[in-house]
Amino acid sequence: MDSTHTFVAGDRGPWITERVTPVTGEPYVSAPRLDVIEGNLAHCDSLWCLRGFRSNLRYTTTAEHAKLLEKSAGLGRPEATLAALIPIRKNDAWWALAQDQRRALFEETSRHTSIGLEYLPNIARRLYHSRDLGEPFDFLTWFEYAPQHEAAFDELLVRLRRTQEWTYVDREFELRLRRAES
Amino acid sequence: MDSTHTFVAGDRGPWITERVTPVTGEPYVSAPRLDVIEGNLAHCDSLWCLRGFRSNLRYTTTAEHAKLLEKSAGLGRPEATLAALIPIRKNDAWWALAQDQRRALFEETSRHTSIGLEYLPNIARRLYHSRDLGEPFDFLTWFEYAPQHEAAFDELLVRLRRTQEWTYVDREFELRLRRAES
Repeated sequence: MDSTHTFVAGDRGPWITERVTPVTGEPYVSAPRLDVIEGNLAHCDSLWCLRGFRSNLRYTTTAEHAKLLEKSAGLGRPEATLAALIPIRKNDAWWALAQDQRRALFEETSRHTSIGLEYLPNIARRLYHSRDLGEPFDFLTWFEYAPQHEAAFDELLVRLRRTQEWTYVDREFELRLRRAES
Repeated sequence: MDSTHTFVAGDRGPWITERVTPVTGEPYVSAPRLDVIEGNLAHCDSLWCLRGFRSNLRYTTTAEHAKLLEKSAGLGRPEATLAALIPIRKNDAWWALAQDQRRALFEETSRHTSIGLEYLPNIARRLYHSRDLGEPFDFLTWFEYAPQHEAAFDELLVRLRRTQEWTYVDREFELRLRRAES
């Protein structure tokens, strides 16, 4: 099953843009709305489109996986009216590393999974892979949370961006969103 | 950069089909020729098309990577007039494993890299990932070798298929090819 999704920034979609925040490098320009489409939309007739696919976990051990499954929350919870799309690109030095080096940086050094676990189930997250599609970013990270957990989400981002792993991130921006009343 | 390639079985291309061999499950039907096209050919107007992309190594450690780089051979060597395309699908049990379990099965248990290393540089190989594109196979493995190394290639396949890792393979066939005189 092709799990590719396309994030379409334009005039349509259930998510209203609250703000775009640059983190590293130039952010994409802001559009009023964001739509999330299942499938690989080959032709983008909106302001911009970003594509990514879900895949198997690349660094998670058996024990970490069990903890993630136990604590994880699904997307689409009614109370999770806020969301963020954070596209991330890592530099060539990261991609030249071997699997054991990337794993060590990801968890033993940077505690990426452990930090994320502390914020579950309040901050639901989903990872889309873009690099293998020749996209401008390597990953599209997606988060959903209730307004009362926004401060915790901000803290999570600050902690992750302080890690050794993040020294390999060479482009990143935040698109903060609010669910439209339906 | 999008590294997707499309393998097109039909009447054209530099590779002449010698034979199709079923390994596990139904093989694809044989076409006279195989073409290898850069890019993701969305519409297949030949007998069949299979797509995959190159990516970073998923299991290789630093030390293994160094050995692979030292011994690897490139594709397109004039003496390597034989080739094989072997599409492989692994079952759900494999994909449900965590990274550390897959790594352990791949190398500590099955010695996949170590076995492959013994046949370098004579048997050049390249791996294409298909699963994340929603393709019918998870991997397209491609090999090029000179006629005098065909027996060694057969042996390599026998050894890999005896491993624990291969108990997770639920579909596989071989397309053996010979380069057309140019």
